[in-house]
Amino acid sequence: MINRRHFIKNTAITTASLPFLGNLSLANTNEGATEIPLNWLDQQAPTQTQGITWGLPWQRGLVKKGSDFVVKNGTTILDSQAWPLAYWPDGSIKWTAHAIAAQKGLGNALSVSLGKNKSDNQGLIIEENSDSILINTGKFSCKINKKGSTLIESISQNGNLRASNGKLVLQVQNQESDENGSLQTQAFEGNIEKISLEQKGSVRSVVKIEGKHANGSRAWLPFTLRLYFYANATAIRMIHTIVFDGNEQQDFIRGLGIRFDVALNDTPAYNRHIRFVGENKGVFSEAVQGITGLRRDAGDTAISAQTMGKAIDINQFDSKFGTKLLQYVPQWGDYSLTQLSPDSFDIQKRTKAGYGWIQSAFGGRSNGTGYLGTAQGGIAFGIRNFWQSFPAQLDIRKAHTAQGEVTMWLWSPKAAAMDLRFYHDGMGQDTFEKQRDALDITYEDYEPEFGTAVGVARTSEVQLWVLEATPSQTELADIAEQIQHPPLLVATPSHFEKVGLFGGGFAVPNLKVAAQAKIEKQLDFFFDFYKGQVNERRWYGFWNYGDVMHTYDKDRHVWRYD
Amino acid sequence: MINRRHFIKNTAITTASLPFLGNLSLANTNEGATEIPLNWLDQQAPTQTQGITWGLPWQRGLVKKGSDFVVKNGTTILDSQAWPLAYWPDGSIKWTAHAIAAQKGLGNALSVSLGKNKSDNQGLIIEENSDSILINTGKFSCKINKKGSTLIESISQNGNLRASNGKLVLQVQNQESDENGSLQTQAFEGNIEKISLEQKGSVRSVVKIEGKHANGSRAWLPFTLRLYFYANATAIRMIHTIVFDGNEQQDFIRGLGIRFDVALNDTPAYNRHIRFVGENKGVFSEAVQGITGLRRDAGDTAISAQTMGKAIDINQFDSKFGTKLLQYVPQWGDYSLTQLSPDSFDIQKRTKAGYGWIQSAFGGRSNGTGYLGTAQGGIAFGIRNFWQSFPAQLDIRKAHTAQGEVTMWLWSPKAAAMDLRFYHDGMGQDTFEKQRDALDITYEDYEPEFGTAVGVARTSEVQLWVLEATPSQTELADIAEQIQHPPLLVATPSHFEKVGLFGGGFAVPNLKVAAQAKIEKQLDFFFDFYKGQVNERRWYGFWNYGDVMHTYDKDRHVWRYD
Repeated sequence: MINRRHFIKNTAITTASLPFLGNLSLANTNEGATEIPLNWLDQQAPTQTQGITWGLPWQRGLVKKGSDFVVKNGTTILDSQAWPLAYWPDGSIKWTAHAIAAQKGLGNALSVSLGKNKSDNQGLIIEENSDSILINTGKFSCKINKKGSTLIESISQNGNLRASNGKLVLQVQNQESDENGSLQTQAFEGNIEKISLEQKGSVRSVVKIEGKHANGSRAWLPFTLRLYFYANATAIRMIHTIVFDGNEQQDFIRGLGIRFDVALNDTPAYNRHIRFVGENKGVFSEAVQGITGLRRDAGDTAISAQTMGKAIDINQFDSKFGTKLLQYVPQWGDYSLTQLSPDSFDIQKRTKAGYGWIQSAFGGRSNGTGYLGTAQGGIAFGIRNFWQSFPAQLDIRKAHTAQGEVTMWLWSPKAAAMDLRFYHDGMGQDTFEKQRDALDITYEDYEPEFGTAVGVARTSEVQLWVLEATPSQTELADIAEQIQHPPLLVATPSHFEKVGLFGGGFAVPNLKVAAQAKIEKQLDFFFDFYKGQVNERRWYGFWNYGDVMHTYDKDRHVWRYD
Repeated sequence: MINRRHFIKNTAITTASLPFLGNLSLANTNEGATEIPLNWLDQQAPTQTQGITWGLPWQRGLVKKGSDFVVKNGTTILDSQAWPLAYWPDGSIKWTAHAIAAQKGLGNALSVSLGKNKSDNQGLIIEENSDSILINTGKFSCKINKKGSTLIESISQNGNLRASNGKLVLQVQNQESDENGSLQTQAFEGNIEKISLEQKGSVRSVVKIEGKHANGSRAWLPFTLRLYFYANATAIRMIHTIVFDGNEQQDFIRGLGIRFDVALNDTPAYNRHIRFVGENKGVFSEAVQGITGLRRDAGDTAISAQTMGKAIDINQFDSKFGTKLLQYVPQWGDYSLTQLSPDSFDIQKRTKAGYGWIQSAFGGRSNGTGYLGTAQGGIAFGIRNFWQSFPAQLDIRKAHTAQGEVTMWLWSPKAAAMDLRFYHDGMGQDTFEKQRDALDITYEDYEPEFGTAVGVARTSEVQLWVLEATPSQTELADIAEQIQHPPLLVATPSHFEKVGLFGGGFAVPNLKVAAQAKIEKQLDFFFDFYKGQVNERRWYGFWNYGDVMHTYDKDRHVWRYD
């Protein structure tokens, strides 16, 4: 977890071998340096990364437009990609962005220098034609369509199809959920209107897809989906944004998600595996056809293989088990992990559509990552800030058939539908004078047209991991952690100070100066207090997470929310 | 909380002044006694009770049919009511039931004796006619209809109407909740088919109402509702049972509840109060029109009165407040406390139907009791085992109008609809031989007709309290506690042993005998372990609470549930 002190403490990491000489001296150590040291924002070097992009500010006049940059890990030059983000008025570079490929073994000695980049022969391979964009990371290839509602045509690995038919899905109903009457639902799919290879590079490439959610009769709820590909990566990162342009009186979103099919082919049901990451690295693990807890013992070899997610050969069942009776062991094709509140999720399963759901497990705050596949590989999928952005849900469907289906629901269809209506009827404020009077008693500036939801937007982040085997519980928990907390690189605070970040407003505090230490302590207190309030008051939810309330009602002991 | 030791420890309470002489001697102390001591099952004497009924077994041959009984608190004879429950083959009484009125001041010296009961002049007053039954407890009167769908016509107190229009409500939909398509909902109300004064007494009377949930075109889901009235009580206890007789393929229950109106008349909105009990005696407290947290200070007098649930006179607002601006302060007519999982509830509110919901509070396990009324009184209402029986909900509606509405949802309409379908398609078990083969591998005895929900039943318990003022937070938390844990009386373990309970199988263990102590310790361990598993595994829910699983899958580390 990040706090203010942590950010400042990072200075100490990079200057550990130097005496603390005060800000000026610290700055001097980098004076004119072409090697800018980088810190991990979360302090510890990650065991692996699926590719990282970060920004770096530069002093006015120091870096000429068109300069090249080198990223080093210690003295080793890494494959990297750089591009300018902003210029000073004198034409020199003010901000750059840098990207490095997916890799392991990054330590605490990363830096950026001016210099000729390493040539790259093993990066992303991109083929673009009139119908599609094909990107191969070296670990998997992904074919993206340029039109229609199937955004991702296929994801393959080592010649095996892993996933296909990637879509954005939307379900809408015409009234709020607990109202009686005839509730009409409509299903939409995200339809491509514009697609571009927003960035094309051998280390990092970005595909930007824009469109609307459409069915035969209507296209609305515009979306932007960016797909991030890094060389050597086994994962695709997706950034998903919607902008509400509907009528909140009749467009109640009951489900908003990202769906794809998973190739399971003819793998026996007992070799198909379901995984969900709960909390504290706990993993819910089942096979589509479980062979434990039965009247006959399948034997240690088969049971051990299944619980570990390894393949069981039909001959590995204990001879007393009677594999001909396997036909009478239920196959569970459908699973849902549903997080309807910030404090509780459950997992349910059913054999297939049309049959009842069975309660399988409960937990508190799920990490929001799942896996569907066989012992020979499959797809891990996860939503960042899953429980924080409730109501959210992970669905696995048809896992007993040749083609399973996975949906990452950013808004769970099991939750009450999204209600974006304004909260009051205007209370008679139909003139400017009345609106002024009302503002004199409440703290809300209201005019009739203010109460619409049109234009509100929400951005979400998900990842797909393309795996060659069913991950162990530790591996899947680690994937979930990387989805939730992808490694991030930053420059040192002293660098930010030296280059004049925030118009010169950024300064590294000197804690040996009592007045500065006192201010820092007070700022830390406020930061930690508000951060604590997020959890204590549950400022979570699809629309609320990230917001902080500002004024306290000391009489009711609540933040003013009404 | 109750455990096995606790039950046994109660012996010590009643024999505290006696040396422990072993079971035989203990039994001897009651030999032929006509005064049977009673214990509180929860050990501590309650500060108040809304009336108690308990059972008492008798030795064969000891009590003649037609005997009278006396209940004493120390040496004071209490108003009581007794009736036989079972007889021995020789015609002597085997079990009696006893009831005492609502009262305070009961200590730890309650007993039952043979003898002439005290005459009672201040008990329940009951008037029955062809249309209705009117019962006056001395604290309030309740008029119950004999036909139609308004079961409780009115509840009055001191000449004031408190509540009216008590109904059983049911909402049904034709498909599961997260399916797309045209979801049709139907609303039903419990319709009286049979009503009887099942017990008529001056201390305790019971009205039994039977019927079905009906609308114009269909009557189904039979219910039994028993209303328990005790002399001097301020509460009605209701026991509500449904039996499923629908078609689980098309009858998905989306809401099942008990609803009534609350008289609010012309009380100003700032003097109307909403309360919900959360967990750990926490109480959510708001006024329909809150006067805190505004741009103008209403003054300590008014703010203090409102936060305490007391009436504010219009003149008590601070003169700088400007009461003419009150018209621009929102009035919140609708509140819901929703418990969708055993670990999380939330409270939302809106100004009125047709406007958006505002998230008001989160919590874990709500006690499930609420209050709607004015400073001059109202109704507290609660569901026993509320969070344990999720999905449950408490609704307050139209609290800004002359007549508020309250619904105690035993199944929350915000949850996914109840799905009672069987879990598999038969897996081809269409002959006896195949069914036998299947039973040889799974542990479930299946035949095609076995997979129906017809006949499953669920009993729930709720209480209505008729209050003369808005309760303090402590008072309402105490009401919630009494709804969840109503005081219960039991005889002593030695009495049970003496009378030969369970065909003589009940024995008070002598912990001084090592072998007995060892068995007790082991039984305690099992009891506590299974009790702990209820929480650890979350064996909760409308259909599951009260059930215990029986066989563990050591490979998957779950109880066999699938």
